[in-house]
Amino acid sequence: MKAVVHVGKLGFDGLTYRDMEMPQPKAGEVRIKLKTTGLNHRDLFVLNRHTPTEPPLIIGSDGAGIIDSIGEGVSNVQVGDEVMINPGLGWKETSDAPPPGFEIVGHPFHGTFAEYVVIPAENVIEKPQYLTWEEAGVLSLAALTAYRVLFTRGRIQPNMKVLIPGIGSGVATFLLQFAKAVGATVIVTSRSQDKCAKALELGADKAIDSNEDWNQALCGEKMDLVIECVGAATFNKSLDQLRTGGTIVTFGASAGDVMQLNLRQFFYGQFNLLGSTMGSAEEYKEMIKFIETHNIKPVIDSMYTLDQFSQAFHRMETATQLGKIGFTIS
Amino acid sequence: MKAVVHVGKLGFDGLTYRDMEMPQPKAGEVRIKLKTTGLNHRDLFVLNRHTPTEPPLIIGSDGAGIIDSIGEGVSNVQVGDEVMINPGLGWKETSDAPPPGFEIVGHPFHGTFAEYVVIPAENVIEKPQYLTWEEAGVLSLAALTAYRVLFTRGRIQPNMKVLIPGIGSGVATFLLQFAKAVGATVIVTSRSQDKCAKALELGADKAIDSNEDWNQALCGEKMDLVIECVGAATFNKSLDQLRTGGTIVTFGASAGDVMQLNLRQFFYGQFNLLGSTMGSAEEYKEMIKFIETHNIKPVIDSMYTLDQFSQAFHRMETATQLGKIGFTIS
Repeated sequence: MKAVVHVGKLGFDGLTYRDMEMPQPKAGEVRIKLKTTGLNHRDLFVLNRHTPTEPPLIIGSDGAGIIDSIGEGVSNVQVGDEVMINPGLGWKETSDAPPPGFEIVGHPFHGTFAEYVVIPAENVIEKPQYLTWEEAGVLSLAALTAYRVLFTRGRIQPNMKVLIPGIGSGVATFLLQFAKAVGATVIVTSRSQDKCAKALELGADKAIDSNEDWNQALCGEKMDLVIECVGAATFNKSLDQLRTGGTIVTFGASAGDVMQLNLRQFFYGQFNLLGSTMGSAEEYKEMIKFIETHNIKPVIDSMYTLDQFSQAFHRMETATQLGKIGFTIS
Repeated sequence: MKAVVHVGKLGFDGLTYRDMEMPQPKAGEVRIKLKTTGLNHRDLFVLNRHTPTEPPLIIGSDGAGIIDSIGEGVSNVQVGDEVMINPGLGWKETSDAPPPGFEIVGHPFHGTFAEYVVIPAENVIEKPQYLTWEEAGVLSLAALTAYRVLFTRGRIQPNMKVLIPGIGSGVATFLLQFAKAVGATVIVTSRSQDKCAKALELGADKAIDSNEDWNQALCGEKMDLVIECVGAATFNKSLDQLRTGGTIVTFGASAGDVMQLNLRQFFYGQFNLLGSTMGSAEEYKEMIKFIETHNIKPVIDSMYTLDQFSQAFHRMETATQLGKIGFTIS
């Protein structure tokens, strides 16, 4: 079968589209013939920072497709079922952190940028009917991340004012959609006028230019909740917009890991800074129920074929996209 | 009456022991003839960073004494009552941050480093019998701060492992006493062997040298809760000791306000950083009940007379103390 693999060298030179052996499901596992898959910042991160212990490694975390073969003892699905994948391995109940041994599909184990993937049967759920294959394939990791960030960590409430700096990534668009579905007031920022316009179409109450003085653009109005995934480049601007006693959730740092924090301002403000990443199987199920209830569909930026992987990665690396970038496989 | 006042110049040169006019209680206020008062880091901070709008300003937040005169409409106390002072003005119910207008006795309004103080009647409570005047006078601000940090913010539980870097300040000794009263395992750090020894006497399960490799000293054991009041100098060492999903509460930065934070490590760790300062009247009452239940008395480092203010401030500024520094007034 064909797959996009990380051959062991860091960066784009480490990525190839090539033949890989057809994987076989063991007990408790299923094989899925993938229809679609989604690209995540995590894939970029794996490519640039992680050398697989056993290259070549098929990368990719998201996917949807049809069950094609099942291992011994699998009873929750059968061959022919239309499913999507929860990419979190080994985190069942919601807790303050994943248990030891938690991993994500696509590193260190083979992922979904391939014609077939073998994963534990407990990691598949029935594809909601109202989602297209494209929508189902690009949804999981980003929507799960957004769900934990907003509900478990940020404890969003309908009357809250929420700021999402850097509307563009798949997670950011889910954050916007989820927060609006809850009934919150949502303000987003972007350097791109197009993204600002698109965010307003998606329901944002206000969209401001990232380069503006945010405090001025918001007339001094402070936020109950700020969701930060840009990182060092915007973190202190984000913090400046928080009301005393407010919460900032961080789950990404695409524009810089290390920032300077003024502790005195922080504790005088009685602020809360909460880190988040991924989510549990329990949160995954809650998220699916939530999007079904509110008829939420992923915002799809663009779809490629797997052999066009470098164009897709390039689009993400240059932050050109708004919403999810995906691959059509079959 | 005699008082220690901030004459308007920043730093020690701005502090004088001099005569001030006897204050008169207005409606809803009481005048207390002070027996004792306590020194806080806040006093140092006011001295070094705040120029009073109407100097001379009597500084000082803590105090205990006898009601000497009451304003119109005061019914909760009477002349002759033995009382202590909650120094928080205008923060009644516990909330995620104080309401607008919240202030602390001693700046911008006159404080307790004086023979008499006038404060709102709602800010006095009966002195618990089991506390001496010295103990009652030095307790309020530090014990209230520690209470909110540990209970409201840190949500301490009996099975938790708690790290308190820099055992020395009044708040730190309360944190140790409170956490042990709850049943938690408490580890403290100090650069001083004497303070480490004293902390063990006070019930600490372990006391390690601040200059050591903490991870080594703790054999890699991670903490559920870290209470940080040292600031930039120890913050990242503190963060390194936190288990994934753990909480670090910050309420002080005596050794540096600005630190470098690695956001990626922070969100991968699913950490919680919570700022805290002071507490509400509701928390103050809970704290008094808690210390009465557990028979907790402040650790007193040293008592001075008001005219010895420079010695007392010097002792705090050089971080020589373990526990509270106070003044005997009458």
